[in-house]
Amino acid sequence: MDRHVVLIKCPDQKGLIHKITGVLFQRAFNIVRNAEFVDPETGTFFMRSEVEGELNSGAVTAELHSVLPHGAEVRIVGAAPKSIVVFVTREYHCLGELLTRHEFQTLGARILAVVSNHDSLGPFVEKFRIPFHYVPHEGLEREEHERRILGVLEPYPADYIVLAKYMRILTPAFVANFRHRIVNIHHSFLPAFAGANPYKQAYQRGVKIIGATAHFVTDELDEGPIIAQSVIPVDHTHGWREMAQAGRDVEKITLARALRFVFEDRVFVSGNRTIIFD
Amino acid sequence: MDRHVVLIKCPDQKGLIHKITGVLFQRAFNIVRNAEFVDPETGTFFMRSEVEGELNSGAVTAELHSVLPHGAEVRIVGAAPKSIVVFVTREYHCLGELLTRHEFQTLGARILAVVSNHDSLGPFVEKFRIPFHYVPHEGLEREEHERRILGVLEPYPADYIVLAKYMRILTPAFVANFRHRIVNIHHSFLPAFAGANPYKQAYQRGVKIIGATAHFVTDELDEGPIIAQSVIPVDHTHGWREMAQAGRDVEKITLARALRFVFEDRVFVSGNRTIIFD
Amino acid sequence: MDRHVVLIKCPDQKGLIHKITGVLFQRAFNIVRNAEFVDPETGTFFMRSEVEGELNSGAVTAELHSVLPHGAEVRIVGAAPKSIVVFVTREYHCLGELLTRHEFQTLGARILAVVSNHDSLGPFVEKFRIPFHYVPHEGLEREEHERRILGVLEPYPADYIVLAKYMRILTPAFVANFRHRIVNIHHSFLPAFAGANPYKQAYQRGVKIIGATAHFVTDELDEGPIIAQSVIPVDHTHGWREMAQAGRDVEKITLARALRFVFEDRVFVSGNRTIIFD
Amino acid sequence: MDRHVVLIKCPDQKGLIHKITGVLFQRAFNIVRNAEFVDPETGTFFMRSEVEGELNSGAVTAELHSVLPHGAEVRIVGAAPKSIVVFVTREYHCLGELLTRHEFQTLGARILAVVSNHDSLGPFVEKFRIPFHYVPHEGLEREEHERRILGVLEPYPADYIVLAKYMRILTPAFVANFRHRIVNIHHSFLPAFAGANPYKQAYQRGVKIIGATAHFVTDELDEGPIIAQSVIPVDHTHGWREMAQAGRDVEKITLARALRFVFEDRVFVSGNRTIIFD
Repeated sequence: MDRHVVLIKCPDQKGLIHKITGVLFQRAFNIVRNAEFVDPETGTFFMRSEVEGELNSGAVTAELHSVLPHGAEVRIVGAAPKSIVVFVTREYHCLGELLTRHEFQTLGARILAVVSNHDSLGPFVEKFRIPFHYVPHEGLEREEHERRILGVLEPYPADYIVLAKYMRILTPAFVANFRHRIVNIHHSFLPAFAGANPYKQAYQRGVKIIGATAHFVTDELDEGPIIAQSVIPVDHTHGWREMAQAGRDVEKITLARALRFVFEDRVFVSGNRTIIFD
Repeated sequence: MDRHVVLIKCPDQKGLIHKITGVLFQRAFNIVRNAEFVDPETGTFFMRSEVEGELNSGAVTAELHSVLPHGAEVRIVGAAPKSIVVFVTREYHCLGELLTRHEFQTLGARILAVVSNHDSLGPFVEKFRIPFHYVPHEGLEREEHERRILGVLEPYPADYIVLAKYMRILTPAFVANFRHRIVNIHHSFLPAFAGANPYKQAYQRGVKIIGATAHFVTDELDEGPIIAQSVIPVDHTHGWREMAQAGRDVEKITLARALRFVFEDRVFVSGNRTIIFD
Repeated sequence: MDRHVVLIKCPDQKGLIHKITGVLFQRAFNIVRNAEFVDPETGTFFMRSEVEGELNSGAVTAELHSVLPHGAEVRIVGAAPKSIVVFVTREYHCLGELLTRHEFQTLGARILAVVSNHDSLGPFVEKFRIPFHYVPHEGLEREEHERRILGVLEPYPADYIVLAKYMRILTPAFVANFRHRIVNIHHSFLPAFAGANPYKQAYQRGVKIIGATAHFVTDELDEGPIIAQSVIPVDHTHGWREMAQAGRDVEKITLARALRFVFEDRVFVSGNRTIIFD
Repeated sequence: MDRHVVLIKCPDQKGLIHKITGVLFQRAFNIVRNAEFVDPETGTFFMRSEVEGELNSGAVTAELHSVLPHGAEVRIVGAAPKSIVVFVTREYHCLGELLTRHEFQTLGARILAVVSNHDSLGPFVEKFRIPFHYVPHEGLEREEHERRILGVLEPYPADYIVLAKYMRILTPAFVANFRHRIVNIHHSFLPAFAGANPYKQAYQRGVKIIGATAHFVTDELDEGPIIAQSVIPVDHTHGWREMAQAGRDVEKITLARALRFVFEDRVFVSGNRTIIFD
C-alpha cells in the first residue's frame, strides 16, 4: 500500500485537526502517525501525517485547501527516497559518512553527484561510482563560479543540496534557487569564534566542549534555521589538532542526524526556527 | 480559561482522531497541543490533547466513549498540581532535589509528606516545614510494616508515591494499591550488577559510564516501565566513592526529569513500555 | 597521616620531574597521585602531586625552589576543606545545590556566608543556619556597593567566592582582590546571545542545545578561564520558560562539578585556559 | 627526533617516579608527557611517559628493570603506527568507519587485511584496495575454522585484531594467541538483554538509552576489560529498526574512540579494568 506524508502549515484556528482528519478519513486513508504543533509565538499551526492508501495528490491538496484558512501551505510527499547533490571542498569526514551510508542504503536518499571546488576528493568519490564534478573557483568572480555550478547541477533533479564541508560562501541569488533545500554543517563553540582557524582559537580559549550545528542555509551565513546540534567533550590535553578531530566526529554524526529528519519530511521551518516532528 | 489534558488509550482503528477531535470541537474546546501515537506492535492508539474551555468532565468522557471502540480508556485531568508523598531511607540527594524545587514552586507537585524507615533525614525535611513520618521496620513483618505505612498515608490524598532512594522492597499487595502511581529511581550500569554495593562492583569492572533509571513500580523489582534514563561518564580515576557521587548526581536529575513528565500527564503505560509525549 | 597537594608551575626544562620527585622522596613523602602536563604552546610545565607524610611547608617550598627554574610558582596546600562565601541575586537553583551538598558534607567546602543584593533568598539560606547578608545596591555607586560587600566579607577567611547567579558585574578593582579565586556560572548557547533575556533569544533562534559555563572571573566579563562546560538538549516544544528551566538544571550541575575541581586543587590557570588534572 | 612511549606496571613503592625519571634523565630523554596512577585496590603502579631522544630500547629496558621492583613490566614502543587485521561478518558500519579513516590517514593504524566468515562485504573492502579474506565457517568445527583463520593471518604482522561486528565467538585457545590484543565492540543496554535480536527485546522493554561497549576480548564472552562506552538516547517513536540504526551510530564512534586510545598506547589492563591515560 502507498505511504505518503501530508505536511500542513497555516494560521491556527479552532477545529483544524478535525477538519483535516475529516478529509483524510473520507478519502479512506489510514493515519499511521500524526503530530501537530502550534507555535505560541506566531499562532502558526503545523501538522504532519503519515497516511496509507491510494492518493491523488492534486485532488487531496485541493480538498485540504478548501477546509483550511487562506494562506495555508499543503505539501504531500510520496515514499520515494530524496535525491541530493553533495558539495565538498577538501575535508573528507562528512562526505565519507554520506557515501558509506549511501553504499549500504541507510542514508535515506540517493546521491546523484558530488561537486567540489577542489579535485582532491575525486578519487575517493569515484570508488563509490558517484559522478564527481570539479568546478574550480580560482580566477573567477563568485557569480561566474556559481553559474558554472548551476550548469553542472542542471541534469540532476536534486531535492536537496548538502554542504558537507563546502568552504565557499553562497550568494543570496544562488540560495534563492533552493529555499530551505540547502543543508550545511558547521563547527560551533561556546563561546563563538569568528575568523581563521577556529580550533586554534578554541584551544587558546580552553573550551571544554566542541559542537556542531546542522542548519538550512539562508542569506545570512551560518545563521539559518537550526536542524540539529551536538557536542563532544574535550580537555586541556587536546591540542588544536585533536580538537579538530573531535570536531570532525561530531560534525559528521550531527549532519547525518539532521539529514535523516529532512529526508523523512519531519522538518518545518517557522521563521528562523525549525519544528521537528519525531 | 480552564486548561485540561484529555488522555485516551484504545485499540487503533480508522478515523479515531477525526471522531475524537469532533467531540472536542463541538464542545467548543480549543486544542492547544495534541499528539497521537499508534504502537505498531500492539495496534494500540494513544492520544493526549491539551484543551482550553469550560469542561464537564463526566459528560465529555461519556461522549468520547460513544465514538471510541469498546475497551477504551479515557482520562481527563485538570491543571491542578499533583500531590505526592515521598519515601526515603537514608540518602539525601534525591530528597534534597525534590524539597528545593518544591520550596521554589518548580517541582510541579505538592509534597504532602515524607515517609522513612529511618529517622536520620527528619531534621532536613522539617527545615522545609513538610511532615516527616518515621515508620521503623525493625522487628516487623514486611506486611505489618506496610500496614503501618498505609495508616500514615491515609490522611494524604496522594496522586503519586515517589521512592526517592527508598531501600525497601514493596510487596505486590502494596503496589496494587497504587497501580502506575509509584515512581522509583535506581542506579543502573552497563553491564548490570546484582547484589550488595553495586558501585564497588562497577568500580572493579571498570565501567566508563554510570546511569540512572526512573520507572514505575510493578510487581517485579526494578523492572517496571521505564520513564527516563540518563548516564554520566566516569573513568579509572574514580574510586567507588566518586562513582557513587556521580551516581547521586545522575539519579536526582533523572528522577526530576521523569517526575516532570508524570506530573504533566505526558506518560502512558503500554505493556511494559512507556509512551511519553513531548 | 597528613595528606598535602603540591602544585608547581614553571618554564619547562629537562629533568624537572626527576628533581621535584627527588625533593619529595628525600623528604620521605609517599606520592599517592601525580600528574604533569607541558603546555606545548607556552612551554610551561605544570605538576600536581598528592603526598602523604609530615610536611614543613616553608622548608619544602624553599627546597623545591632551589631545584626549579627562576620564576617557578610552588603552592602546598593541606587537606583542610576550603572556605567559601556565596554571592547570589534572586535565583535559587545554584544556591540550593550548594546548600544541600553543604548540609550533607558532600560539597567539599565550608560555606561561611551568603551575600546578596536582594533579600528574597534570605529565609531559604537561614533554614540551613548560614549567615545571610543583604547588601542592597540601589542608589549606590558600584564602588560604594563593593566597598560595603568587602566590609561584610572581612570577618570571613574565604578561600573562594562563588557567584551562584550573582547578577552584578564586579569591577576590576574588586576582582583584583581575589585573583583566580572567584568562580562564576553563566548560561551559554550556540550561537551566543548578548543582551536581555537570552532564553527568549535562544527560543526565537530555535537552538537545540542549552549550555552552562563555569569559569574564573577576570576583568573581562564572562571571559575568564573556563573550568567546566556542559549542555542539555532542548527542542521546539520547549518554550523559553522550559528552556530556562533546562538552563537551571545544567547550570547547577556544571557549577558543582567545577567547584569540586577547584576545591580539590586540581585546577591550574595558564593564560586564559585551565589545566585540570583528573 | 625520535618519539617513544615508555609503559611501566609494577607493585607500588616509594620513590618510583624519581628512580624512573632518573633513568630517563640520565639517558638525556626529554619527557614530553607523563602520567602515573596507583590503583588503590591492588597497590599497582602504572606509568606512561612520552619521551624524545635517541633510544636503545633493550638497554633502557634493562636499566629501568634495575631500579624497579621484581615483577615489573616495562614496554617501550616507537612512534610507528600499529598494524591491524579487521574481522567482520555482515554489518558494514564499523568497517566503513575504519576504512574511511584509514583512507585519509586518521585511523592511527594500518589495516593489513579484512577477514570475514561471509563474503558480502568483500566488494566494499576492495574499493579501498585492502586484501579481503573470506573464511566460511559452514560445516566446520570451531577449531578447524579458527585454524584456517590463523593460516590467513600468518603473513600479516598484526599488532591488534579488531572485531568490527564479527559475530562468532572465539575460543580461549584462539584468544590466548593475542592476549589483550583483540578489541571487540558490542551493543549494550540498560538493562542487559541476552539472546537473539537484542534490539527487539530493548524495544519491548522500552529503553530510553542505547549504548555500546568497546573492550578487550578475554575468555569470557563480552566480559573483558572495558576501554570505552557511549550511549545515545532513544524514545518510544523508535521502532526496533530505528533503535538498531542508533546502535550502529554509537557502536562505530565508540569503537573508533577506543582504538585511538589503544593505538596511542594509552591503555593499561589491571585485572578486569583498564587504566587509560589522557
